[in-house]
Amino acid sequence: MTDFRFELLAQDGEARTGVIHTPRGEIRTPAFMPVGTAATVKAMLPQSVRETGADILLGNTYHLMLRPGAERIARLGGLHKFMDWQRPILTDSGGFQVMSLSALRKISEEGVKFQSHIDGHEEFLSPERAMAIQRLLGSDIQMVFDECPALPATHGAIEKSMALSMRWAKRSKDAFGEQSEEERRGRACFGIVQGGTFTDLRVRSAQALKEIGFDGYAVGGLAVGEPQSAMFETLEATVPHLPADRPRYLMGVGKPSDIVGAVLRGIDMFDCVLPTRSGRNGQAFTWDGPLNLRNARHAEDQEPLDAACRCPACRSYSRAYLHHVVKAGEIIASMLLTAHNLTFFQDVMRTLREAIADGRAASFAAQFLLRYGGSEAPDG
Amino acid sequence: MTDFRFELLAQDGEARTGVIHTPRGEIRTPAFMPVGTAATVKAMLPQSVRETGADILLGNTYHLMLRPGAERIARLGGLHKFMDWQRPILTDSGGFQVMSLSALRKISEEGVKFQSHIDGHEEFLSPERAMAIQRLLGSDIQMVFDECPALPATHGAIEKSMALSMRWAKRSKDAFGEQSEEERRGRACFGIVQGGTFTDLRVRSAQALKEIGFDGYAVGGLAVGEPQSAMFETLEATVPHLPADRPRYLMGVGKPSDIVGAVLRGIDMFDCVLPTRSGRNGQAFTWDGPLNLRNARHAEDQEPLDAACRCPACRSYSRAYLHHVVKAGEIIASMLLTAHNLTFFQDVMRTLREAIADGRAASFAAQFLLRYGGSEAPDG
Repeated sequence: MTDFRFELLAQDGEARTGVIHTPRGEIRTPAFMPVGTAATVKAMLPQSVRETGADILLGNTYHLMLRPGAERIARLGGLHKFMDWQRPILTDSGGFQVMSLSALRKISEEGVKFQSHIDGHEEFLSPERAMAIQRLLGSDIQMVFDECPALPATHGAIEKSMALSMRWAKRSKDAFGEQSEEERRGRACFGIVQGGTFTDLRVRSAQALKEIGFDGYAVGGLAVGEPQSAMFETLEATVPHLPADRPRYLMGVGKPSDIVGAVLRGIDMFDCVLPTRSGRNGQAFTWDGPLNLRNARHAEDQEPLDAACRCPACRSYSRAYLHHVVKAGEIIASMLLTAHNLTFFQDVMRTLREAIADGRAASFAAQFLLRYGGSEAPDG
Repeated sequence: MTDFRFELLAQDGEARTGVIHTPRGEIRTPAFMPVGTAATVKAMLPQSVRETGADILLGNTYHLMLRPGAERIARLGGLHKFMDWQRPILTDSGGFQVMSLSALRKISEEGVKFQSHIDGHEEFLSPERAMAIQRLLGSDIQMVFDECPALPATHGAIEKSMALSMRWAKRSKDAFGEQSEEERRGRACFGIVQGGTFTDLRVRSAQALKEIGFDGYAVGGLAVGEPQSAMFETLEATVPHLPADRPRYLMGVGKPSDIVGAVLRGIDMFDCVLPTRSGRNGQAFTWDGPLNLRNARHAEDQEPLDAACRCPACRSYSRAYLHHVVKAGEIIASMLLTAHNLTFFQDVMRTLREAIADGRAASFAAQFLLRYGGSEAPDG
């Protein structure tokens, strides 16, 4: 059986391309992970997700612990079998959703008490419980439990929160290490750098995580409303302090221009609901920027979204058809636009990997941004 | 190019099996037509519909005329191209939906004035307009425009309505005949028998249609709330008066036991929203009767819906997974249960065709009903 291993294939400036080897398959980096919140990538069958080019999915600990429950999924043979996705799965630790979705949170050194957003029942998450849930799910890449402070916040507040997250990171790693060797084999545990946009805190957080030692290093707490320039500056201050031989994951990012810019700054992995959620809202990503299919100008447009795209929407349908099914609220609109958007994101990643391998990452990024446009707002 | 032609392969009692040859492909009968209301079989891609075994879809004139509009679909190359379904399409004439969906109907000898249920704008349907719309859509089997009276109604009211429908049938046929020979080639026009559950009116209606002469004969105005026995009695009184060498179509039917009973009474074609709509509501059809996946007893059931079924839901998922995604309101629940239900309906049709060819239609029907159960209500 293959162990978890990151193989760096080429570097171009700070940008890197490589392969993460896992027992469940290879993950080509830079990688985009579609989000499979509740044991499904919304509006997609797993086979269709794979056909977009995805090597790995993200599952949400918070959602799955509430419904259908981690112990239940374990009894049913684990998340891969449950949702029919045999390739790698990364699970977050629930920390972010506890902050953004649940009610009546109470944070202590021990963990977080909160109420389910589904039915209000009381739940508890701690580093130990978050890792236990990820083990029950059978996750290939397990994330440490961290606190995600609300922004804006003072240096003092972020420092305190980061310090707590680092203590939780140590407890998470210890809990991961206490799994049996057989269970752990080929599975990875990633730390999460916190510290807001304060570069001194980011550096301290990165150093604290390196001392604990992880299979990969994530950057959390970004893309929460700060300007893109602040995100990029934070990455520039953080990435040099992360080990070069481990994958780097920018959590919850993002827009295509965010991804391209973060890859240039040394990030290897991404996840975001943007392609799936936008697809359900009638928005399509293209190399010429986003389109809103609801717009009446598409009503008699016989052209596909993108004649060069290999997705089911572009192979078989006109923009006029997509406009019609978006307006009519038909499920096929969500299915086709989600498939298209995930294909687009994977094609961006593939093109980035090729550009890095060829030593032309910066010129590709410049050309991409020129054509895609500075604004991420759909054309209406 | 093949003309429209019905080939009878075998008869067993009143039950028949055959093939309708059309330029766009063969339709094996008895046939079940999935409903593609608004240019999509809800929650399905056309390729997946085909994989269930469907030879032909039904499209709704009423829905398509309102959105996106028949002229628009014609400019976009016709309904087949628009929705990416290259096999035969039957379109209804809009008469039924005008009665069931629109507001402020005003019926005259000329036709029906009504308000769109989408935005309230005024529309008009007549035999001539209904046939023009079906021609614009490029429909392979075009239905005459008929009046669908609300039930219950007196013999006198139904007689008057039926007589109007017969005059409209003549005008519809004339309008169909005025299409150019090239346009009409390989396309069919079906008449619709009306008359409620009054057998004398049904016989007169059938005779009136035969005098006009159609490529196929539908039975309309049934399965609108009357007991199954009344529907079967009406079929028994009607079918003998229909030409044996033309396909017979029972509109809007139905439950599996309705279909099996109607096939035994000589019906060749069916359409119904039941498998698709039930799928979106968490209901699954099985040979042992319907199941409600919302029921908590499925929560940890590792078995598939039907181990012998070839659909994507049964090949890859447990009942526990289906229960989870139904409860969570995930789109994949609609996708998987629709695919399963359409596969089940097509498997019932295939098994009926085989039983008729083997001369064991009656015994198959008896066994089917014994196992499926008398009640069509899901087990909860």
